[in-house]
Amino acid sequence: MKIIIDAMGGDHAPAAPVEAGARATRELGVDIVLVGKRDVIERELAKYQFDKNRLEIVHADEVITNHEEPAKAVRAKKNASVVVAGRLLKEGKGDAMLSMGNTGALLATGLLIVGRSKGVSRPALATLLPTDKGPKLLIDAGANTNCKDINLVQFAVMGSIYMKNVLDIDRPRVGLMSNGEEEGKGDALTKETYPLLQRAGVNFIGNIEGRDVMEGNADVITCDGFVGNVILKTVEGMGSVISKKVKGLFLKNMFTKIGSLFVAGGLKEFKKMMDYREYGGAPLLGVKKPVIKGHGSSDAKAAFSAIIQAKKFVETNVIQNIEGHIGSMEVIKDE
Amino acid sequence: MKIIIDAMGGDHAPAAPVEAGARATRELGVDIVLVGKRDVIERELAKYQFDKNRLEIVHADEVITNHEEPAKAVRAKKNASVVVAGRLLKEGKGDAMLSMGNTGALLATGLLIVGRSKGVSRPALATLLPTDKGPKLLIDAGANTNCKDINLVQFAVMGSIYMKNVLDIDRPRVGLMSNGEEEGKGDALTKETYPLLQRAGVNFIGNIEGRDVMEGNADVITCDGFVGNVILKTVEGMGSVISKKVKGLFLKNMFTKIGSLFVAGGLKEFKKMMDYREYGGAPLLGVKKPVIKGHGSSDAKAAFSAIIQAKKFVETNVIQNIEGHIGSMEVIKDE
Repeated sequence: MKIIIDAMGGDHAPAAPVEAGARATRELGVDIVLVGKRDVIERELAKYQFDKNRLEIVHADEVITNHEEPAKAVRAKKNASVVVAGRLLKEGKGDAMLSMGNTGALLATGLLIVGRSKGVSRPALATLLPTDKGPKLLIDAGANTNCKDINLVQFAVMGSIYMKNVLDIDRPRVGLMSNGEEEGKGDALTKETYPLLQRAGVNFIGNIEGRDVMEGNADVITCDGFVGNVILKTVEGMGSVISKKVKGLFLKNMFTKIGSLFVAGGLKEFKKMMDYREYGGAPLLGVKKPVIKGHGSSDAKAAFSAIIQAKKFVETNVIQNIEGHIGSMEVIKDE
Repeated sequence: MKIIIDAMGGDHAPAAPVEAGARATRELGVDIVLVGKRDVIERELAKYQFDKNRLEIVHADEVITNHEEPAKAVRAKKNASVVVAGRLLKEGKGDAMLSMGNTGALLATGLLIVGRSKGVSRPALATLLPTDKGPKLLIDAGANTNCKDINLVQFAVMGSIYMKNVLDIDRPRVGLMSNGEEEGKGDALTKETYPLLQRAGVNFIGNIEGRDVMEGNADVITCDGFVGNVILKTVEGMGSVISKKVKGLFLKNMFTKIGSLFVAGGLKEFKKMMDYREYGGAPLLGVKKPVIKGHGSSDAKAAFSAIIQAKKFVETNVIQNIEGHIGSMEVIKDE
């Protein structure tokens, strides 16, 4: 198996992707392609041990920054690292790709270069959220706004297959994000989606509310990308505010610092729960090949987690299963 | 000034509203009308000191429960406590009303009995969120789904006036909840709303993201009620999950229990920050008289805070200011 990594994307690039890629050749038995500026990658790579037979560099000398309009940049910069990585993936020169760079550019690469799966009208970004009952999948987390009912149904199907295959969750419970639990609650979109989800071949548990997100009451949360983005960023923002508060609790004076010694283990656990980096990257579901978006702030450890995830994504045939499920059911096909 | 209280609404009714009402007659110099079952209220009232000249009971023998369809129940149960309270308010037999009961029933009472302000197309529920920079207003927090641009603009105007008058915030910063900060980001609704907000006579700071909610980067957050409800409940759910975690940190063993002694003061502060009850009730803005929804789980202290809030709501002429602002600007009028 060969995994293609955009070595130039992310806050800690190229260090984090290069270190993680080098480690993957030694520990995971996978081949790695690092895409980006050859001299920069080689200089970084010199710091780590890696399996020479399993690692290659493909040169790409452009980079798409956060200030560019993503779709336009992907079309214009044929030699941007993320675009080259996408092209290699499309041409079968690798089995999956991973980028920690600009989210919009990766989405555009997925849509314009890798291409949509047959029957999927809008691919979606799916993010794992750390909850009280383990990681849960929020889909769509921001790729699509102004969705239609069929989109939310397809998100539910794709998310269910991902959670079953990659996270080993049997019959993942699918919740439809709404503003009330009863069947009649919701806006026009969720009211139209509800009956379709009942016939979509997923384990639909009905409407869920914001409370259910962090309580982990659904394994897959399906929603419009506008709502998903708001949820994701609200949770991230609250997590960072509260982490600061809890830290502040202990730094107040000598006595509180002594107190922190007593609860050090628990604090570490708490910090781990609040740290999205433990949970790997966000798969882009609905495109023809496995594409994973790693968090922009990924360090080498987080990037390595994302590579493990990409490997399982490929091994468990997520995409073939998605295409099979969507192709077989009239109610959820859209083309 | 006379404040009408639905004495039968909320998890701790009639105890909490009755105790808070009795206290208000002694400490706030306001008159109180308690609406509900007379014998039940009298029995509860016997436990507290109150100013007899300032307190009256109006009998209402029906109650609307959480299991009823709100608008239907408000129409059918002419003698429900919340409906009677609304009628007294409409007839000028009080200056403001407060209920801790069924949210839908209070909204329906506001719309059907108290009535919309001239020019306001959809009244909204506005909730104060505890953030890192003090309480901020989320509007609409759940009264309206499938909003139009004009609704979001009116929410921004009403929320700004409320924050200025009742929370003494000078030129409240208005943020438009979106999935990205740049002007071009958003869904169809927010893209249409953006230019209108620039001409609405409020201190519009542009799009904000979920991260900004708990960081407190806007004083007024305007959004569709579906999105507002999801934000509010996500924050509440995450707050309760994390409070449990932090508590669990300290209850693990003898050593961690000792640790908790060192940080007791800070922990109390943290708990206070996570406790929405400190922040009073949620005003229903856009109706002709002051209507406040207290949190269902309000104790007597929270109910008393809501009475203080109702008093300031009346004293600072929030409603006249809203009607004046909306009436004077063509861009935000809708009738």
